[in-house]
Amino acid sequence: MTEPTQQMEDVSIKDEKMDKVDEDDVVNPWEVATSSATGVDYDKLIKRFGSTKIDDALLQRIEKVTGKPVHHLLRRGKFFSQRDMHIILDLYEQKKPFYLYTGRGPSSDSMHMGHLIPFIFTKWLQDTFDVPLVIQLTDDEKYLWKDLTLEQANHMAFENAKDIIACGFDIEKTFIFSDLDFISNSPAFYRNMCRVQKLVTYNQVKGIFGFGDSDCIGKISFPAIQASPSFSSSFPEIFNGRSDIPCLIPCAIDQDPYFRMTRDVAPRMNCLKPALIHSTFFPALQGAQTKMSASDPTSSIFVTDSDKQIKDKINKYAFSGGGATVEEHKEKGGNCDVDVSFQYLTFFMEDDDRLEEIRKTYTSGELLTGFLKKELVEILQKLVGEHRQRRASLTDDVVKQFMTPRKLKFDYPPPTPPSEKKKKKKQKNSKAV
Amino acid sequence: MTEPTQQMEDVSIKDEKMDKVDEDDVVNPWEVATSSATGVDYDKLIKRFGSTKIDDALLQRIEKVTGKPVHHLLRRGKFFSQRDMHIILDLYEQKKPFYLYTGRGPSSDSMHMGHLIPFIFTKWLQDTFDVPLVIQLTDDEKYLWKDLTLEQANHMAFENAKDIIACGFDIEKTFIFSDLDFISNSPAFYRNMCRVQKLVTYNQVKGIFGFGDSDCIGKISFPAIQASPSFSSSFPEIFNGRSDIPCLIPCAIDQDPYFRMTRDVAPRMNCLKPALIHSTFFPALQGAQTKMSASDPTSSIFVTDSDKQIKDKINKYAFSGGGATVEEHKEKGGNCDVDVSFQYLTFFMEDDDRLEEIRKTYTSGELLTGFLKKELVEILQKLVGEHRQRRASLTDDVVKQFMTPRKLKFDYPPPTPPSEKKKKKKQKNSKAV
Repeated sequence: MTEPTQQMEDVSIKDEKMDKVDEDDVVNPWEVATSSATGVDYDKLIKRFGSTKIDDALLQRIEKVTGKPVHHLLRRGKFFSQRDMHIILDLYEQKKPFYLYTGRGPSSDSMHMGHLIPFIFTKWLQDTFDVPLVIQLTDDEKYLWKDLTLEQANHMAFENAKDIIACGFDIEKTFIFSDLDFISNSPAFYRNMCRVQKLVTYNQVKGIFGFGDSDCIGKISFPAIQASPSFSSSFPEIFNGRSDIPCLIPCAIDQDPYFRMTRDVAPRMNCLKPALIHSTFFPALQGAQTKMSASDPTSSIFVTDSDKQIKDKINKYAFSGGGATVEEHKEKGGNCDVDVSFQYLTFFMEDDDRLEEIRKTYTSGELLTGFLKKELVEILQKLVGEHRQRRASLTDDVVKQFMTPRKLKFDYPPPTPPSEKKKKKKQKNSKAV
Repeated sequence: MTEPTQQMEDVSIKDEKMDKVDEDDVVNPWEVATSSATGVDYDKLIKRFGSTKIDDALLQRIEKVTGKPVHHLLRRGKFFSQRDMHIILDLYEQKKPFYLYTGRGPSSDSMHMGHLIPFIFTKWLQDTFDVPLVIQLTDDEKYLWKDLTLEQANHMAFENAKDIIACGFDIEKTFIFSDLDFISNSPAFYRNMCRVQKLVTYNQVKGIFGFGDSDCIGKISFPAIQASPSFSSSFPEIFNGRSDIPCLIPCAIDQDPYFRMTRDVAPRMNCLKPALIHSTFFPALQGAQTKMSASDPTSSIFVTDSDKQIKDKINKYAFSGGGATVEEHKEKGGNCDVDVSFQYLTFFMEDDDRLEEIRKTYTSGELLTGFLKKELVEILQKLVGEHRQRRASLTDDVVKQFMTPRKLKFDYPPPTPPSEKKKKKKQKNSKAV
């Protein structure tokens, strides 16, 4: 499948409500729902969203230019779709700069393992490519959508920042910001918001996000706020006033509507289109067709769960693809495609050989559900335990430092003044003549 | 006519497009049009907008509580409509604080006399009541509505600030701000914007402002930006964090839709409704039914016009209500109701007796148009000359000082902490028991 042209993107933005994949799957920034036990049909989603599937050739190219194996989340198709990744790899090969942008809507004090996936992968991208990273915490969005006060939403942003930092991000390469705090402290960011707001109509956000006439005007203009970090000119402190540093956005595929819109307006703003790399969704314990909810503690493993809670939840709630009885399991085998514990292993077990062994023996019926779950429980206890430790050792001062607009460890020559650009263009033209 | 109840305001906001006064008059923040030579029918407008006519009793009360004669713009009905003015006068009598808020959309580098009317009157209010004043320059609005860059709109705001300051405002009592600069520098203001944006739906702004589905999302959410300065909590620097200082807004009646919306959301934000005092429109030189336009230099007198330009424009373009010939004028007399020069005198000539004499002798035909115009030219040359001088003497530093968020000369005790409030309430309740 070829990369969609600019025109195709325009059409998709203007004419279609993009949240329905087929009769059953619903995918938009506020709702992901499917009736299939194996989860959302991602191939269909790629076609509808107009993105490009990550194929072996791309994986090989990433390994070639970085000189190291790709992350298991990439290898196993958890990050499965992209836009303009080849442009980013070209830049990296040419030693030209780019940056990473991801984010989170802070809807609860504590994050679950599904929330961590994009950050775990983003940390790998940052380590591998050695680039700056900006992380947007959309506390304003959560205030607009939920029954929260501004203070509550802002507090959650600060608490979530701790969980994000505990993923191991480098303070010299990472800027984390709350919208409520940063927008009212950043003329450059606010100006980009205004630019986007001037170029996107109500009809467009209605088509892209399904907003209705009784939605509040805050929701209607919010997409401009999520679009703005895609432009390096929104962060003059980091990029020394440069507006030409390209951006790569790792995110779950449900966030793509925001960035289809962003890619549509970018050329009209004289800005670069952000590149994207999309992940699948992390299943709820109860199965891929149920919704993981931060307000339902039994639907997922939280980064605050104790070892015992992790063990109990996996044993009690993780949907099993095994047989109803030991005899039946041994006879018919287990179904890895719907087994949540196995699915979780594909996200968290780094050892490919061990995972393949589990897949084989579980499918054949040799490995029982209890043993599969035991293996997962150990991995999760270790991951969550390490995360808990890193989080506990974080001081508020360090969090505030991450959240202070500032120069990172990267240097950028100042932008070329417009008069110089004209001169260069003239020189080029006169040479051509 | 009594002050409309909260319920009536709600209804008008939700169900009606409020810009049409009758079949001919159109009045909204972006368009004022009438086919009547005497201008908009203001009595009808008051009924449609649900405001209250300023009557003699109110004028007498203002004179009583301030101990000085009311401004001629008030005396002559140029400020003709209000909401909650009696509450403001009660506060003044009780020596309780309030503040003034007005604004301007900076659409051109130079302002005309019509633009100055609200500021001339606001200066009188500030002098008379000795209160703080905030002036909003909506450069973001002009960027969204016009074919302007952000830089152009922002530059116009700075230039217009000079013209506004030249009206004689007291630097110790006045804060002037550009939206583009202040919003991105004021967490408190931005939070109030978000609060308003959460409470107002697309349906409501569609009804109030006539926005359509192909309008950009910036326009749709803009009304929250014009609403926010109505709340003292938007200016913690001035009001020491107090959210309970009432606001009085002097403005032209076409801005009322913004503040009907603001008054509707205020109680739900736990904020005070702003009071209002509305002016009529200043007629174009060509007559009350034509549009004054900053881009058409012949449609008005600009504060940058030379003495000669003023004289030439009045003589050449000011629509005359006099006879076609001297003989006809002497026989039939002049019509002051449509004569633009006479109308201008009602705005700018302070001497009531002289104005009445002119009205009588022009109506009878005794005073010729040439003499009427000569009198106006002299007054305008003096006004504009003084303004020009004050503007020329302004340094950029003084303008920047006016535009710096800061404490003004007024002191406010800090707000009562919520815990104290509860205590007080409890004490009250226990007393009541």
